[in-house]
Amino acid sequence: MQLVRVLDFIGVGVFAVSGALAAGRKRLDVVGVVVIATVTAIGGGTLRDLLMNRTIFWFIDPAYLIAIFAAAALTMLYVRYRHPPERQLDVADAIGLAMFSISGARIAEQERLPDLIVVVIAVITGTFGGVLRDVLCNDIPMILQRGRIYASAVVAGTSLYVLVQHAGLNRDLASYGGMAT
Amino acid sequence: MQLVRVLDFIGVGVFAVSGALAAGRKRLDVVGVVVIATVTAIGGGTLRDLLMNRTIFWFIDPAYLIAIFAAAALTMLYVRYRHPPERQLDVADAIGLAMFSISGARIAEQERLPDLIVVVIAVITGTFGGVLRDVLCNDIPMILQRGRIYASAVVAGTSLYVLVQHAGLNRDLASYGGMAT
Amino acid sequence: MQLVRVLDFIGVGVFAVSGALAAGRKRLDVVGVVVIATVTAIGGGTLRDLLMNRTIFWFIDPAYLIAIFAAAALTMLYVRYRHPPERQLDVADAIGLAMFSISGARIAEQERLPDLIVVVIAVITGTFGGVLRDVLCNDIPMILQRGRIYASAVVAGTSLYVLVQHAGLNRDLASYGGMAT
Repeated sequence: MQLVRVLDFIGVGVFAVSGALAAGRKRLDVVGVVVIATVTAIGGGTLRDLLMNRTIFWFIDPAYLIAIFAAAALTMLYVRYRHPPERQLDVADAIGLAMFSISGARIAEQERLPDLIVVVIAVITGTFGGVLRDVLCNDIPMILQRGRIYASAVVAGTSLYVLVQHAGLNRDLASYGGMAT
Repeated sequence: MQLVRVLDFIGVGVFAVSGALAAGRKRLDVVGVVVIATVTAIGGGTLRDLLMNRTIFWFIDPAYLIAIFAAAALTMLYVRYRHPPERQLDVADAIGLAMFSISGARIAEQERLPDLIVVVIAVITGTFGGVLRDVLCNDIPMILQRGRIYASAVVAGTSLYVLVQHAGLNRDLASYGGMAT
Repeated sequence: MQLVRVLDFIGVGVFAVSGALAAGRKRLDVVGVVVIATVTAIGGGTLRDLLMNRTIFWFIDPAYLIAIFAAAALTMLYVRYRHPPERQLDVADAIGLAMFSISGARIAEQERLPDLIVVVIAVITGTFGGVLRDVLCNDIPMILQRGRIYASAVVAGTSLYVLVQHAGLNRDLASYGGMAT
């Protein structure tokens, strides 16, 4: 359970950065940036918790929201002084994807759902925040445009994770790292 | 209960075809086609289950997901050799709409909700998958554009269904068939 | 509890007007106007109830839906004879925002959630209907475009509300009125 919280925390942070970068590129104002950062960060985990009928993860601990606001603020500051290349958005997305996918898979596993369902929930948890971000920014979701890289990575990674189960968590993280590049 | 599963199954299959056709038209790659097919197929039923606080229908049985993947794969194969006219997408949509609407109506009825709510839940169950498909493809939802045909049919069909109640299921199916053309 | 219902009722009515106006501007037909009006009106409260794991508010009482249909019909009639300036949409939005935000805040408070979460749920309840309306109409959500006015108002208003708690409800309503102009 503790590990799930750590994964959620890192996922929330990097997706907030990814959301803030995307909103900045659309030239939205401060409120728009914070809203998009928040939606991107909590979208996947919130849908996971809704589907699994669990208490929404950020209800339990306001620290998630504070982390998002801090990450969005730091991103806005950073962008003011340096122009981030598109690559940064991709890397932030890939890390968030990996964190949320594994947290989704672990929670689905605890409920003893079939393996195929575990993989689908992992994919939903990992990708839904980014999809919401792109829909709100009026783009076709990035995951569909460059699907081969992202969605395939998360499907492969989570399937591998289900195979090697609990013992293989480190190997799984490593496999994500490899695929993300 | 058994009937609801059969309706959900057919609905899932034809909506997967409709989603795959729409994604193919947007020239998305294989992953994009599968994602859109899945979202279209499970969107309506998932929202219905979320609203009714039931266990999500595809959690219970992975066969739904396998059916979606199979339908999407067959659609992609078919499209490679023959060019489907727009009409196919419409017909697939209409059948899925009818299946999911009735399954939504039956479940809402079992909860002894007021008739008006039953109709609204039926409409949501029938249409939400297609709406998600169109939002993700960055179109204005088809149901709104050609609302007279689709949404009216489902409203009329479900209202009729509620009127004739359980005894009238066959008549209801017939009425959908008539309206869909 | 009673107050929450009154707030929901007013919110539903004005958001239905706002949705119908937006759909009319996109030249959607009658079904499209009713669908958009309904989604705008129940979107925020439905998401609030889903997140809080409560029974969806319009399941309990079909009167909400009747109010929406009446509001949409009256709006369509009104628009046929007079051309509403953009200002009306803004005002309807601001009132709905205020009603739903306070109803969201009150419900979150009853669950003894932390103050920061209460504010976020209030913002979600107040804004989600309008966001859905804009996404379905294929626009970038209004709240993000003119975020300074709307989102800031609801954040400030709800924070104030949390500070002054139950005793301060009238002052809160007043503060919304002031900010909306």
